Amino acid sequence: MKTAYKKIVSASFFIGKTSAGLISFGSGQPDLPPPKQIFRAQQRFKNFRYGLIQGEENLRGALAKEYPYAKADDFVITNGASEALDILLRAIARPGGKILLPKPYYYSYPHNVRLAGMVPEYYRLENGKIDLNDLEKKIRGCVAVLINSPANPTGSVQDILVLKAIKVLAERFDVCIISDEIYKDIIYGRKNYLIQGKNVCTVNSFSKTFAMCGLRVGYLYTKNREIVEKVVEIKTHTSMNTNTLAQEMAYEALQAPKSLIVKQAAIWKARRDYIYESMTDLGLDVGRPEGAFYIFPKFKDPTRVMHDLFYKYKLVTYDGVWFGDPTRLRFSYALDIKKIQEGMARLEKFLKKEYRRY
Amino acid sequence: MKTAYKKIVSASFFIGKTSAGLISFGSGQPDLPPPKQIFRAQQRFKNFRYGLIQGEENLRGALAKEYPYAKADDFVITNGASEALDILLRAIARPGGKILLPKPYYYSYPHNVRLAGMVPEYYRLENGKIDLNDLEKKIRGCVAVLINSPANPTGSVQDILVLKAIKVLAERFDVCIISDEIYKDIIYGRKNYLIQGKNVCTVNSFSKTFAMCGLRVGYLYTKNREIVEKVVEIKTHTSMNTNTLAQEMAYEALQAPKSLIVKQAAIWKARRDYIYESMTDLGLDVGRPEGAFYIFPKFKDPTRVMHDLFYKYKLVTYDGVWFGDPTRLRFSYALDIKKIQEGMARLEKFLKKEYRRY
Repeated sequence: MKTAYKKIVSASFFIGKTSAGLISFGSGQPDLPPPKQIFRAQQRFKNFRYGLIQGEENLRGALAKEYPYAKADDFVITNGASEALDILLRAIARPGGKILLPKPYYYSYPHNVRLAGMVPEYYRLENGKIDLNDLEKKIRGCVAVLINSPANPTGSVQDILVLKAIKVLAERFDVCIISDEIYKDIIYGRKNYLIQGKNVCTVNSFSKTFAMCGLRVGYLYTKNREIVEKVVEIKTHTSMNTNTLAQEMAYEALQAPKSLIVKQAAIWKARRDYIYESMTDLGLDVGRPEGAFYIFPKFKDPTRVMHDLFYKYKLVTYDGVWFGDPTRLRFSYALDIKKIQEGMARLEKFLKKEYRRY
Repeated sequence: MKTAYKKIVSASFFIGKTSAGLISFGSGQPDLPPPKQIFRAQQRFKNFRYGLIQGEENLRGALAKEYPYAKADDFVITNGASEALDILLRAIARPGGKILLPKPYYYSYPHNVRLAGMVPEYYRLENGKIDLNDLEKKIRGCVAVLINSPANPTGSVQDILVLKAIKVLAERFDVCIISDEIYKDIIYGRKNYLIQGKNVCTVNSFSKTFAMCGLRVGYLYTKNREIVEKVVEIKTHTSMNTNTLAQEMAYEALQAPKSLIVKQAAIWKARRDYIYESMTDLGLDVGRPEGAFYIFPKFKDPTRVMHDLFYKYKLVTYDGVWFGDPTRLRFSYALDIKKIQEGMARLEKFLKKEYRRY
């Protein structure tokens, strides 16, 4: 199993290098190009000295303009959203403290919690939507509750009223809210709703919106000054400044016209429509994604399906069990629509041939 | 005190921006330019997708050629040596386990140990040299012992026989050796001695040798496959790949002719000779640095000296207490020799005027 996992995941990352004809619905990274503005920074950059641990001032200033009432000092620039989450958890850690996570979850969350010396607890997502009663029962005594909307792996977007209710609960029980909004600009029905408040810590990234995954620029945004200071202090010892050249490029990405994001969202929506309709036409039990670029259909024996799709149909998918749901498979549709079409044709063959005999 | 600390440290980082006439013996970063080869990579780089968590294959392959009997798979590329050390400690952590550190130490070490849920213990450096008897008494039962040669803040290089003896001790008591050799190419008397063995983890960086501090490329090198795998697993969740553009630039830095490092070492040596002779001429109690670019003279009331030098003579120095030695001040001589001369002239004035009345 571990070998198959490695093979499938690495095929997903290194498609093209490894196997002709492979179509990867695996890794979650945009195939769209980054804004051309970033090349300006890449070409002119010359200063290789240490930067500020908190992040370059121009980048933090530009980010502050993207958030209502924000100041440059409310941000810490990190090595991707991953590092923002890792250091944030270390900053707020209480030994053995509980962090309330959604289930299904982005596969790193439970690891991040344990790596910070804490214990993951889970609230239920029903078809991707937060079960507020379940969350309410479990939130008391937790150090923080993590919200991920739009979500990986479900593609769900949480209702604004639910998010507001969670904010009230978190304040009542003095629990920090960690809001992972890295898919905030890839959303189909409405604009992203930013959860705000003193004990809210927003985690975000340039990877998905601006297709800059490999450059690893993310950030933490919070109005809680104590948390900002603690995060900067930890980062001083654990990685120092985030790559200054990449920060300059991220700054230029923010200078790109906003129409770029609108255009990209239209591309994502067309792909979402296509893959969702294909899967429902194929009779799969699947929810309609409202954001991000994942779709999460149900299967009997998903692990076996994943193996068959990979070895017999050259399709990479990710096992739902990696995300805390052993009844589903995750398809990332960050792919050209022609490849999605070809992928769905292969999926249809698999369903008609192998799957009916499961 | 905390405010003065911030002021002095930030003056050290942002000299030029903050105060005309300031001479900084503070921050430890080379003033020499990086090898021009890195600009090639900067110009041509176009792939912004995720990279391998362990690091790009070409960079690891090039590093393997720098170390005897090394393979590309023995390396993990990290966000500077800081992240290499942070993740390594998390990988080998046992709750409450002890890590044996030198004292004085690089100021992050004790923080790194505590952030990994462990406890720092210290072995004595006598005028920068390891007290082997003291280390022997304390090593038993530790998870790891950390060696830093050439050293920050003392500038000392440890004797090869001592390093060999520590290797024997570490093997006998089944203790891991963490060898921070980030100053391996800035060494005056002899070549760096690489500590080798299955339980040796070498931490290194492109920051000092190649003057690429802000790009944050470092690495872990170890023959212990289990540790490599554990580090890669942790990094998957805490920061993913190291910036791929910076890795490409680091790869090009390794293509620069080795004569560059020899030339740089000659520059560092001239500076070392000048500052060491100046300080002894001024009657200071100071050891002759054998590597790195720090000198660590004794003072009565070093904190007061640091403040007086900063506020009255516009000289930035770092308080020895930050490095675990309250009897000294650290001077980084990563400065043009003219600035070192001017700095020593100001130091002389201070010694003749203020210091004699201490």
